[in-house]
Amino acid sequence: MSDGGREHFQRELLKLNEKVLKMGGMVEQAIYKSVKALTKNDSSLAQEVVKADDTIDKMELEVDDLCLELLATQQPMAIDLRFITTGMRIATDLERIGDLSVDVAQRAIELSSQPMVKPLIDIPKQGELAQQMVHKALDAFVKRDSRLAQSLWKDEDQADHYRDLVHDELLGIMNKDAQAAAGSIPLILISRHLERIADHATNIAEDVIYMVEGTVVKHLPKEISKYST
Amino acid sequence: MSDGGREHFQRELLKLNEKVLKMGGMVEQAIYKSVKALTKNDSSLAQEVVKADDTIDKMELEVDDLCLELLATQQPMAIDLRFITTGMRIATDLERIGDLSVDVAQRAIELSSQPMVKPLIDIPKQGELAQQMVHKALDAFVKRDSRLAQSLWKDEDQADHYRDLVHDELLGIMNKDAQAAAGSIPLILISRHLERIADHATNIAEDVIYMVEGTVVKHLPKEISKYST
Repeated sequence: MSDGGREHFQRELLKLNEKVLKMGGMVEQAIYKSVKALTKNDSSLAQEVVKADDTIDKMELEVDDLCLELLATQQPMAIDLRFITTGMRIATDLERIGDLSVDVAQRAIELSSQPMVKPLIDIPKQGELAQQMVHKALDAFVKRDSRLAQSLWKDEDQADHYRDLVHDELLGIMNKDAQAAAGSIPLILISRHLERIADHATNIAEDVIYMVEGTVVKHLPKEISKYST
Repeated sequence: MSDGGREHFQRELLKLNEKVLKMGGMVEQAIYKSVKALTKNDSSLAQEVVKADDTIDKMELEVDDLCLELLATQQPMAIDLRFITTGMRIATDLERIGDLSVDVAQRAIELSSQPMVKPLIDIPKQGELAQQMVHKALDAFVKRDSRLAQSLWKDEDQADHYRDLVHDELLGIMNKDAQAAAGSIPLILISRHLERIADHATNIAEDVIYMVEGTVVKHLPKEISKYST
Protein backbone atom coordinates (compact mmCIF):
# COMPACT_ATOMS: atom_id res chain seq x y z
CA MET A 1 0.00 0.00 0.00
CA SER A 2 1.34 3.50 -0.78
CA ASP A 3 1.93 5.95 2.09
CA GLY A 4 -1.13 7.92 0.97
CA GLY A 5 -3.19 4.74 0.80
CA ARG A 6 -1.96 3.69 4.21
CA GLU A 7 -2.84 7.09 5.66
CA HIS A 8 -6.31 6.92 4.15
CA PHE A 9 -6.76 3.42 5.57
CA GLN A 10 -5.70 4.58 9.04
CA ARG A 11 -8.25 7.40 8.87
CA GLU A 12 -10.96 4.91 7.94
CA LEU A 13 -10.01 2.69 10.87
CA LEU A 14 -10.29 5.71 13.17
CA LYS A 15 -13.72 6.37 11.72
CA LEU A 16 -14.66 2.79 12.58
CA ASN A 17 -13.39 3.34 16.14
CA GLU A 18 -15.52 6.46 16.45
CA LYS A 19 -18.68 4.86 15.10
CA VAL A 20 -18.39 1.89 17.43
CA LEU A 21 -17.81 4.18 20.41
CA LYS A 22 -20.73 6.40 19.47
CA MET A 23 -22.98 3.38 19.16
CA GLY A 24 -21.65 2.10 22.49
CA GLY A 25 -22.47 5.41 24.18
CA MET A 26 -26.04 5.22 22.93
CA VAL A 27 -26.41 1.65 24.09
CA GLU A 28 -25.04 2.52 27.53
CA GLN A 29 -27.64 5.27 27.79
CA ALA A 30 -30.36 2.78 26.82
CA ILE A 31 -29.34 0.38 29.61
CA TYR A 32 -29.14 3.20 32.16
CA LYS A 33 -32.48 4.74 31.23
CA SER A 34 -34.37 1.44 31.04
CA VAL A 35 -33.36 0.50 34.59
CA LYS A 36 -34.04 4.04 35.83
CA ALA A 37 -37.50 3.90 34.20
CA LEU A 38 -38.14 0.79 36.27
CA THR A 39 -36.85 2.08 39.60
CA LYS A 40 -38.47 5.54 39.22
CA ASN A 41 -41.66 4.11 37.74
CA ASP A 42 -41.19 6.50 34.82
CA SER A 43 -43.00 5.26 31.69
CA SER A 44 -42.07 8.27 29.57
CA LEU A 45 -38.37 7.56 30.17
CA ALA A 46 -39.06 3.96 29.14
CA GLN A 47 -40.69 5.25 25.95
CA GLU A 48 -37.52 7.23 25.20
CA VAL A 49 -35.54 4.00 25.24
CA VAL A 50 -37.99 2.37 22.82
CA LYS A 51 -37.77 5.33 20.43
CA ALA A 52 -34.00 5.67 20.55
CA ASP A 53 -33.59 2.07 19.42
CA ASP A 54 -34.21 3.02 15.78
CA THR A 55 -31.06 5.12 15.82
CA ILE A 56 -29.07 2.28 17.36
CA ASP A 57 -30.34 -0.02 14.60
CA LYS A 58 -29.21 2.49 11.97
CA MET A 59 -25.78 2.73 13.58
CA GLU A 60 -25.34 -1.02 13.24
CA LEU A 61 -25.94 -0.76 9.50
CA GLU A 62 -23.49 2.14 9.22
CA VAL A 63 -20.78 0.16 10.98
CA ASP A 64 -21.51 -2.85 8.77
CA ASP A 65 -21.33 -0.78 5.59
CA LEU A 66 -18.06 0.80 6.60
CA CYS A 67 -16.56 -2.60 7.46
CA LEU A 68 -17.67 -4.19 4.19
CA GLU A 69 -16.28 -1.25 2.26
CA LEU A 70 -12.94 -1.55 4.06
CA LEU A 71 -12.82 -5.28 3.41
CA ALA A 72 -13.63 -4.79 -0.27
CA THR A 73 -11.33 -1.86 -1.01
CA GLN A 74 -8.37 -2.16 1.36
CA GLN A 75 -7.56 -5.86 1.43
CA PRO A 76 -6.55 -5.62 5.08
CA MET A 77 -4.31 -8.28 6.63
CA ALA A 78 -3.64 -9.74 10.07
CA ILE A 79 -4.58 -7.45 12.98
CA ASP A 80 -6.27 -4.91 10.68
CA LEU A 81 -8.44 -7.61 9.14
CA ARG A 82 -9.35 -8.89 12.58
CA PHE A 83 -10.02 -5.34 13.80
CA ILE A 84 -12.59 -4.85 11.01
CA THR A 85 -14.35 -8.20 11.41
CA THR A 86 -14.39 -7.63 15.17
CA GLY A 87 -16.00 -4.23 14.54
CA MET A 88 -18.81 -5.96 12.65
CA ARG A 89 -19.33 -8.46 15.45
CA ILE A 90 -19.35 -5.76 18.09
CA ALA A 91 -22.01 -3.81 16.19
CA THR A 92 -24.20 -6.94 16.21
CA ASP A 93 -23.72 -7.37 19.95
CA LEU A 94 -24.46 -3.70 20.63
CA GLU A 95 -27.61 -3.83 18.53
CA ARG A 96 -28.85 -6.79 20.55
CA ILE A 97 -27.99 -5.02 23.79
CA GLY A 98 -30.15 -2.16 22.50
CA ASP A 99 -33.02 -4.62 21.93
CA LEU A 100 -32.59 -6.06 25.42
CA SER A 101 -32.75 -2.55 26.90
CA VAL A 102 -36.04 -2.09 25.02
CA ASP A 103 -37.24 -5.35 26.58
CA VAL A 104 -36.37 -3.99 30.04
CA ALA A 105 -38.11 -0.70 29.23
CA GLN A 106 -41.27 -2.48 28.05
CA ARG A 107 -41.46 -4.52 31.21
CA ALA A 108 -40.97 -1.33 33.24
CA ILE A 109 -44.05 0.07 31.46
CA GLU A 110 -45.95 -3.17 32.14
CA LEU A 111 -45.06 -2.94 35.85
CA SER A 112 -45.85 0.77 36.20
CA SER A 113 -49.57 0.13 36.74
CA GLN A 114 -49.12 -2.13 39.77
CA PRO A 115 -47.36 -1.90 43.16
CA MET A 116 -43.88 -3.46 43.32
CA VAL A 117 -43.83 -6.88 45.00
CA LYS A 118 -40.54 -5.97 46.71
CA PRO A 119 -38.12 -3.04 47.00
CA LEU A 120 -35.59 -3.21 44.16
CA ILE A 121 -32.04 -3.64 45.39
CA ASP A 122 -30.16 -6.14 43.25
CA ILE A 123 -31.67 -5.25 39.87
CA PRO A 124 -30.33 -1.66 39.90
CA LYS A 125 -26.89 -3.00 40.86
CA GLN A 126 -27.11 -5.54 38.07
CA GLY A 127 -28.03 -2.80 35.59
CA GLU A 128 -25.08 -0.66 36.65
CA LEU A 129 -22.73 -3.61 36.34
CA ALA A 130 -24.03 -4.46 32.85
CA GLN A 131 -23.51 -0.87 31.73
CA GLN A 132 -19.96 -0.80 33.11
CA MET A 133 -19.16 -4.07 31.37
CA VAL A 134 -20.23 -2.69 28.00
CA HIS A 135 -18.11 0.40 28.61
CA LYS A 136 -15.07 -1.61 29.62
CA ALA A 137 -15.36 -4.02 26.67
CA LEU A 138 -15.47 -1.16 24.16
CA ASP A 139 -12.59 0.57 25.89
CA ALA A 140 -10.61 -2.65 25.48
CA PHE A 141 -11.54 -2.71 21.77
CA VAL A 142 -10.32 0.80 20.96
CA LYS A 143 -7.21 0.46 23.12
CA ARG A 144 -6.64 -3.07 21.74
CA ASP A 145 -6.07 -4.07 25.37
CA SER A 146 -6.58 -7.78 26.05
CA ARG A 147 -5.79 -7.43 29.78
CA LEU A 148 -8.68 -5.03 30.17
CA ALA A 149 -10.91 -7.37 28.15
CA GLN A 150 -10.10 -10.32 30.37
CA SER A 151 -11.14 -8.35 33.47
CA LEU A 152 -14.74 -8.96 32.35
CA TRP A 153 -14.71 -12.63 33.40
CA LYS A 154 -15.10 -11.68 37.07
CA ASP A 155 -17.84 -9.20 36.21
CA GLU A 156 -19.76 -11.88 34.39
CA ASP A 157 -19.69 -14.16 37.42
CA GLN A 158 -21.10 -11.28 39.43
CA ALA A 159 -23.84 -10.67 36.84
CA ASP A 160 -24.83 -14.36 37.00
CA HIS A 161 -24.87 -14.14 40.78
CA TYR A 162 -27.31 -11.20 40.72
CA ARG A 163 -29.60 -13.09 38.35
CA ASP A 164 -29.67 -16.08 40.70
CA LEU A 165 -30.30 -13.87 43.75
CA VAL A 166 -33.24 -12.14 42.05
CA HIS A 167 -34.66 -15.43 40.79
CA ASP A 168 -34.50 -17.17 44.17
CA GLU A 169 -35.92 -14.24 46.10
CA LEU A 170 -38.88 -13.80 43.76
CA LEU A 171 -39.57 -17.53 43.64
CA GLY A 172 -39.76 -17.41 47.45
CA ILE A 173 -42.27 -14.54 47.28
CA MET A 174 -44.43 -16.38 44.72
CA ASN A 175 -44.34 -19.57 46.77
CA LYS A 176 -45.96 -17.68 49.66
CA ASP A 177 -48.42 -15.63 47.65
CA ALA A 178 -50.06 -16.78 44.41
CA GLN A 179 -51.16 -13.20 43.66
CA ALA A 180 -47.50 -12.10 43.47
CA ALA A 181 -46.83 -13.99 40.21
CA ALA A 182 -47.95 -11.23 37.84
CA GLY A 183 -45.64 -8.70 39.50
CA SER A 184 -42.75 -11.10 40.03
CA ILE A 185 -42.28 -12.70 36.63
CA PRO A 186 -41.53 -9.42 34.81
CA LEU A 187 -38.81 -8.73 37.41
CA ILE A 188 -37.31 -12.18 36.88
CA LEU A 189 -37.30 -11.53 33.14
CA ILE A 190 -35.73 -8.07 33.56
CA SER A 191 -32.95 -9.62 35.60
CA ARG A 192 -32.42 -12.16 32.82
CA HIS A 193 -32.35 -9.42 30.18
CA LEU A 194 -29.64 -7.64 32.18
CA GLU A 195 -27.68 -10.84 32.52
CA ARG A 196 -27.85 -11.32 28.76
CA ILE A 197 -26.53 -7.79 28.29
CA ALA A 198 -23.59 -8.79 30.49
CA ASP A 199 -23.15 -11.89 28.29
CA HIS A 200 -22.98 -9.76 25.14
CA ALA A 201 -20.36 -7.55 26.81
CA THR A 202 -18.36 -10.69 27.56
CA ASN A 203 -18.70 -11.79 23.93
CA ILE A 204 -17.22 -8.45 22.89
CA ALA A 205 -14.34 -8.95 25.35
CA GLU A 206 -13.63 -12.42 23.93
CA ASP A 207 -13.58 -11.03 20.40
CA VAL A 208 -11.18 -8.27 21.50
CA ILE A 209 -8.75 -10.83 22.92
CA TYR A 210 -8.89 -12.80 19.69
CA MET A 211 -8.33 -9.60 17.73
CA VAL A 212 -5.28 -8.59 19.79
CA GLU A 213 -3.66 -11.94 20.44
CA GLY A 214 -4.91 -13.98 17.51
CA THR A 215 -5.82 -16.55 20.18
CA VAL A 216 -9.30 -17.85 20.72
CA VAL A 217 -10.50 -17.76 24.32
CA LYS A 218 -14.13 -18.34 23.43
CA HIS A 219 -15.50 -21.60 24.78
CA LEU A 220 -12.49 -22.35 26.96
CA PRO A 221 -13.34 -23.07 30.59
CA LYS A 222 -12.30 -19.78 32.16
CA GLU A 223 -10.31 -21.41 34.97
CA ILE A 224 -7.84 -23.06 32.60
CA SER A 225 -7.55 -20.10 30.28
CA LYS A 226 -4.30 -18.19 30.52
CA TYR A 227 -6.51 -15.12 30.62
CA SER A 228 -8.23 -15.99 33.85
CA THR A 229 -7.68 -13.54 36.66
CA MET B 1 -8.04 -13.87 -10.56
CA SER B 2 -6.63 -16.66 -12.77
CA ASP B 3 -8.93 -19.54 -13.78
CA GLY B 4 -7.03 -21.83 -11.40
CA GLY B 5 -7.32 -19.24 -8.63
CA ARG B 6 -11.01 -18.82 -9.33
CA GLU B 7 -11.53 -22.58 -9.22
CA HIS B 8 -9.70 -22.84 -5.94
CA PHE B 9 -11.80 -20.00 -4.56
CA GLN B 10 -15.05 -21.71 -5.63
CA ARG B 11 -13.92 -24.90 -3.91
CA GLU B 12 -13.25 -22.94 -0.73
CA LEU B 13 -16.71 -21.39 -0.90
CA LEU B 14 -18.22 -24.88 -1.24
CA LYS B 15 -16.24 -25.90 1.81
CA LEU B 16 -17.77 -22.97 3.68
CA ASN B 17 -21.25 -24.09 2.55
CA GLU B 18 -20.56 -27.58 3.83
CA LYS B 19 -19.22 -26.47 7.18
CA VAL B 20 -22.21 -24.20 7.80
CA LEU B 21 -24.65 -26.98 6.86
CA LYS B 22 -22.86 -29.49 9.05
CA MET B 23 -22.98 -27.07 11.97
CA GLY B 24 -26.65 -26.42 11.21
CA GLY B 25 -27.44 -30.14 11.29
CA MET B 26 -25.83 -30.47 14.70
CA VAL B 27 -27.71 -27.48 16.02
CA GLU B 28 -31.02 -28.85 14.71
CA GLN B 29 -30.30 -32.10 16.54
CA ALA B 30 -29.61 -30.14 19.72
CA ILE B 31 -32.98 -28.36 19.52
CA TYR B 32 -34.83 -31.60 18.79
CA LYS B 33 -33.16 -33.58 21.55
CA SER B 34 -33.50 -30.86 24.19
CA VAL B 35 -37.29 -30.67 23.69
CA LYS B 36 -37.59 -34.44 23.54
CA ALA B 37 -35.61 -34.69 26.79
CA LEU B 38 -38.24 -32.43 28.34
CA THR B 39 -41.33 -34.19 26.99
CA LYS B 40 -39.98 -37.72 27.64
CA ASN B 41 -38.48 -36.73 31.00
CA ASP B 42 -35.17 -38.14 29.76
CA SER B 43 -32.22 -36.59 31.61
CA SER B 44 -29.61 -38.67 29.83
CA LEU B 45 -30.78 -37.31 26.48
CA ALA B 46 -30.53 -33.82 27.98
CA GLN B 47 -26.95 -34.60 29.03
CA GLU B 48 -26.15 -35.56 25.43
CA VAL B 49 -27.17 -32.07 24.33
CA VAL B 50 -24.92 -30.49 26.94
CA LYS B 51 -21.95 -32.63 25.86
CA ALA B 52 -22.46 -32.09 22.12
CA ASP B 53 -22.25 -28.34 22.57
CA ASP B 54 -18.43 -28.45 22.69
CA THR B 55 -18.37 -29.72 19.14
CA ILE B 56 -20.75 -26.98 17.99
CA ASP B 57 -18.46 -24.41 19.64
CA LYS B 58 -15.49 -25.84 17.76
CA MET B 59 -17.39 -25.70 14.48
CA GLU B 60 -17.98 -21.98 14.99
CA LEU B 61 -14.24 -21.42 15.26
CA GLU B 62 -13.60 -23.53 12.16
CA VAL B 63 -16.09 -21.49 10.12
CA ASP B 64 -14.56 -18.28 11.44
CA ASP B 65 -11.04 -19.37 10.58
CA LEU B 66 -12.06 -20.37 7.07
CA CYS B 67 -13.85 -17.04 6.52
CA LEU B 68 -10.91 -14.98 7.79
CA GLU B 69 -8.55 -16.95 5.60
CA LEU B 70 -10.76 -16.36 2.55
CA LEU B 71 -10.99 -12.65 3.33
CA ALA B 72 -7.23 -12.38 3.74
CA THR B 73 -6.12 -14.41 0.76
CA GLN B 74 -8.85 -14.06 -1.88
CA GLN B 75 -9.86 -10.40 -1.73
CA PRO B 76 -13.46 -11.32 -2.53
CA MET B 77 -15.83 -8.69 -3.91
CA ALA B 78 -19.58 -8.03 -3.99
CA ILE B 79 -21.74 -11.14 -3.46
CA ASP B 80 -18.73 -13.34 -2.63
CA LEU B 81 -17.59 -10.90 0.03
CA ARG B 82 -21.10 -10.79 1.47
CA PHE B 83 -21.36 -14.59 1.32
CA ILE B 84 -18.26 -14.91 3.47
CA THR B 85 -19.19 -12.26 6.03
CA THR B 86 -22.70 -13.78 6.18
CA GLY B 87 -21.11 -17.17 6.83
CA MET B 88 -19.33 -15.69 9.87
CA ARG B 89 -22.55 -14.17 11.18
CA ILE B 90 -24.48 -17.40 10.70
CA ALA B 91 -21.87 -19.35 12.64
CA THR B 92 -22.33 -16.91 15.53
CA ASP B 93 -26.12 -17.35 15.43
CA LEU B 94 -25.82 -21.13 15.26
CA GLU B 95 -23.43 -21.19 18.18
CA ARG B 96 -25.93 -19.21 20.27
CA ILE B 97 -28.76 -21.50 19.21
CA GLY B 98 -26.60 -24.35 20.49
CA ASP B 99 -26.25 -22.54 23.83
CA LEU B 100 -30.00 -21.99 24.01
CA SER B 101 -30.60 -25.70 23.39
CA VAL B 102 -28.29 -26.40 26.31
CA ASP B 103 -30.40 -24.00 28.39
CA VAL B 104 -33.53 -25.96 27.43
CA ALA B 105 -31.79 -29.25 28.24
CA GLN B 106 -30.65 -28.00 31.65
CA ARG B 107 -34.17 -26.93 32.56
CA ALA B 108 -35.45 -30.31 31.41
CA ILE B 109 -33.04 -31.88 33.92
CA GLU B 110 -34.20 -29.45 36.61
CA LEU B 111 -37.84 -30.41 35.95
CA SER B 112 -37.23 -34.15 35.78
CA SER B 113 -37.44 -34.55 39.57
CA GLN B 114 -40.94 -33.10 39.90
CA PRO B 115 -44.37 -33.74 38.35
CA MET B 116 -45.32 -31.52 35.40
CA VAL B 117 -47.72 -28.71 36.32
CA LYS B 118 -49.57 -29.29 33.02
CA PRO B 119 -49.47 -31.55 29.96
CA LEU B 120 -47.08 -30.09 27.39
CA ILE B 121 -48.81 -29.16 24.13
CA ASP B 122 -47.53 -25.85 22.81
CA ILE B 123 -43.88 -26.18 23.85
CA PRO B 124 -43.26 -29.27 21.64
CA LYS B 125 -44.92 -27.46 18.71
CA GLN B 126 -42.78 -24.41 19.38
CA GLY B 127 -39.66 -26.57 19.43
CA GLU B 128 -40.54 -28.18 16.12
CA LEU B 129 -41.20 -24.79 14.57
CA ALA B 130 -37.87 -23.41 15.82
CA GLN B 131 -36.02 -26.38 14.34
CA GLN B 132 -37.78 -25.99 10.98
CA MET B 133 -36.93 -22.29 10.92
CA VAL B 134 -33.23 -22.99 11.39
CA HIS B 135 -33.38 -25.56 8.61
CA LYS B 136 -35.18 -23.22 6.23
CA ALA B 137 -32.86 -20.27 6.94
CA LEU B 138 -29.77 -22.38 6.17
CA ASP B 139 -31.39 -23.77 3.07
CA ALA B 140 -31.97 -20.17 1.93
CA PHE B 141 -28.29 -19.42 2.61
CA VAL B 142 -26.86 -22.24 0.52
CA LYS B 143 -29.39 -21.74 -2.27
CA ARG B 144 -28.93 -17.94 -2.05
CA ASP B 145 -32.76 -17.79 -2.10
CA SER B 146 -34.21 -14.59 -0.65
CA ARG B 147 -37.84 -15.69 -1.23
CA LEU B 148 -37.30 -18.70 0.97
CA ALA B 149 -35.59 -16.50 3.56
CA GLN B 150 -38.52 -14.09 3.68
CA SER B 151 -40.94 -16.95 4.39
CA LEU B 152 -39.55 -16.92 7.94
CA TRP B 153 -41.41 -13.72 8.90
CA LYS B 154 -44.68 -15.63 9.29
CA ASP B 155 -42.97 -18.38 11.24
CA GLU B 156 -41.57 -15.84 13.64
CA ASP B 157 -45.02 -14.45 14.36
CA GLN B 158 -46.15 -17.98 15.12
CA ALA B 159 -43.17 -18.52 17.43
CA ASP B 160 -44.04 -15.33 19.33
CA HIS B 161 -47.63 -16.50 19.57
CA TYR B 162 -46.59 -19.80 21.16
CA ARG B 163 -44.45 -17.97 23.69
CA ASP B 164 -47.42 -15.76 24.67
CA LEU B 165 -49.78 -18.73 24.94
CA VAL B 166 -47.38 -20.60 27.20
CA HIS B 167 -46.73 -17.52 29.33
CA ASP B 168 -50.41 -16.70 29.84
CA GLU B 169 -51.44 -20.25 30.58
CA LEU B 170 -48.71 -20.76 33.18
CA LEU B 171 -49.37 -17.40 34.78
CA GLY B 172 -53.01 -18.50 35.17
CA ILE B 173 -51.88 -21.72 36.88
CA MET B 174 -49.56 -19.85 39.24
CA ASN B 175 -52.27 -17.34 40.10
CA LYS B 176 -54.42 -20.20 41.38
CA ASP B 177 -51.70 -22.20 43.11
CA ALA B 178 -48.65 -20.67 44.76
CA GLN B 179 -46.96 -24.08 44.88
CA ALA B 180 -46.97 -24.25 41.07
CA ALA B 181 -44.35 -21.49 40.68
CA ALA B 182 -41.29 -23.75 40.94
CA GLY B 183 -42.60 -26.02 38.16
CA SER B 184 -44.00 -23.24 35.99
CA ILE B 185 -41.14 -20.77 35.74
CA PRO B 186 -38.73 -23.24 34.08
CA LEU B 187 -41.43 -23.92 31.45
CA ILE B 188 -41.89 -20.18 30.82
CA LEU B 189 -38.13 -19.87 30.42
CA ILE B 190 -37.94 -22.87 28.06
CA SER B 191 -40.60 -21.28 25.89
CA ARG B 192 -38.56 -18.07 25.82
CA HIS B 193 -35.38 -19.97 24.91
CA LEU B 194 -37.25 -21.54 21.97
CA GLU B 195 -38.55 -18.15 20.91
CA ARG B 196 -35.00 -16.81 20.96
CA ILE B 197 -33.90 -19.70 18.77
CA ALA B 198 -36.62 -18.63 16.31
CA ASP B 199 -35.25 -15.06 16.52
CA HIS B 200 -31.75 -16.24 15.64
CA ALA B 201 -33.17 -18.14 12.66
CA THR B 202 -34.87 -14.91 11.56
CA ASN B 203 -31.57 -13.05 11.94
CA ILE B 204 -29.99 -15.58 9.61
CA ALA B 205 -32.83 -15.08 7.10
CA GLU B 206 -32.34 -11.29 7.20
CA ASP B 207 -28.63 -11.71 6.59
CA VAL B 208 -29.34 -14.03 3.65
CA ILE B 209 -31.60 -11.42 2.03
CA TYR B 210 -28.91 -8.81 2.45
CA MET B 211 -26.37 -11.18 0.99
CA VAL B 212 -28.48 -11.94 -2.08
CA GLU B 213 -30.08 -8.60 -2.75
CA GLY B 214 -27.58 -6.19 -1.23
CA THR B 215 -30.64 -4.67 0.49
CA VAL B 216 -31.02 -4.37 4.20
CA VAL B 217 -34.30 -5.64 5.60
CA LYS B 218 -33.12 -5.73 9.18
CA HIS B 219 -34.97 -3.29 11.41
CA LEU B 220 -37.66 -2.46 8.84
CA PRO B 221 -41.21 -2.89 10.06
CA LYS B 222 -42.10 -6.16 8.33
CA GLU B 223 -45.45 -4.87 7.02
CA ILE B 224 -43.84 -2.15 4.88
CA SER B 225 -40.96 -4.28 3.71
CA LYS B 226 -41.15 -5.41 0.12
CA TYR B 227 -40.28 -8.84 1.44
CA SER B 228 -43.40 -9.19 3.54
CA THR B 229 -45.63 -12.09 2.61
